[in-house]
Amino acid sequence: MSLEIERKFLVASLPKGMDRHPHERILQGYLVVGADGSEVRLRRKGRKHYETVKAGRGEVRSELETELTAIQFDRLWEATAGRRVEKTRYEVPHAGKTIEVDVYHGELAGLVTAECEFATPEESRRFVAPAWLGREVTGDPSYQNQSLALHGRPRARSRREEPGGGTGRPPPGLE
Amino acid sequence: MSLEIERKFLVASLPKGMDRHPHERILQGYLVVGADGSEVRLRRKGRKHYETVKAGRGEVRSELETELTAIQFDRLWEATAGRRVEKTRYEVPHAGKTIEVDVYHGELAGLVTAECEFATPEESRRFVAPAWLGREVTGDPSYQNQSLALHGRPRARSRREEPGGGTGRPPPGLE
Repeated sequence: MSLEIERKFLVASLPKGMDRHPHERILQGYLVVGADGSEVRLRRKGRKHYETVKAGRGEVRSELETELTAIQFDRLWEATAGRRVEKTRYEVPHAGKTIEVDVYHGELAGLVTAECEFATPEESRRFVAPAWLGREVTGDPSYQNQSLALHGRPRARSRREEPGGGTGRPPPGLE
Repeated sequence: MSLEIERKFLVASLPKGMDRHPHERILQGYLVVGADGSEVRLRRKGRKHYETVKAGRGEVRSELETELTAIQFDRLWEATAGRRVEKTRYEVPHAGKTIEVDVYHGELAGLVTAECEFATPEESRRFVAPAWLGREVTGDPSYQNQSLALHGRPRARSRREEPGGGTGRPPPGLE
């Protein structure tokens, strides 16, 4: 079982030349979400399919994953109805790390978030965010993909801080 | 997605010659259980491995299932720790139907339940239980395998009705 240590940010303005970075379309849905925030997630990333079990909340979560065949994925996918998210993930290099930038589609269009994963809690604390990252939302449950899939985009306060002011338009870098 | 229509009973005394009927050891565990009773279950039955997603409660539940490889099963199994059940399932013929009799092991030893699945609600209503079946527990959440895995064996009232009077000994037919 692996532990996931990561920080998450809203994206104030996308870095230039985003499309030059490796990117892939991700479709994911939740089979079941537990009262304690644990989840079983199905994900199609490019041509690969995965099932992931996450337990716990916040910055450190335990995670187990296995690859599925397309047939297995299709058999179970129906059970994720009403709990799905679609996005394009860009892998943007920064100071020896990779920042994963997620540009959401469908009902979440206009929302862009970024995550960086760390090997240790110390490395996580030392991380200096580049200028194009906005407010940090690590541990904010409303920006978990699970919550975005179940409850949609967070409202109010956070909207004004997002690119496009919550108008649903993509941030400048993607226009 | 299939609908499961079934009735469940406690077993008052096992029918004679149980071991002559087809039977298989079943090990199952729950990856995540939702607040609404939905569940993702891993099951090893003989040499086969399955993942099943169930939604809803009671007599009619929707169900999706796919077969897993042993490697996929082993990758995810760790996440079921503390939410597991082990039992031997006997397939006992009765009046053209098959009654599945589950003899539990481990902490649940002494508990024996039986289930019969039906094609339609009408067939379910018409079912006449054989004399060796005890109290009906259809729709009683405490006898769902999910609940047995999470909370253990139901107490009090039901114990006296069970074979062995809740002493943990197997019912007469298995002695």
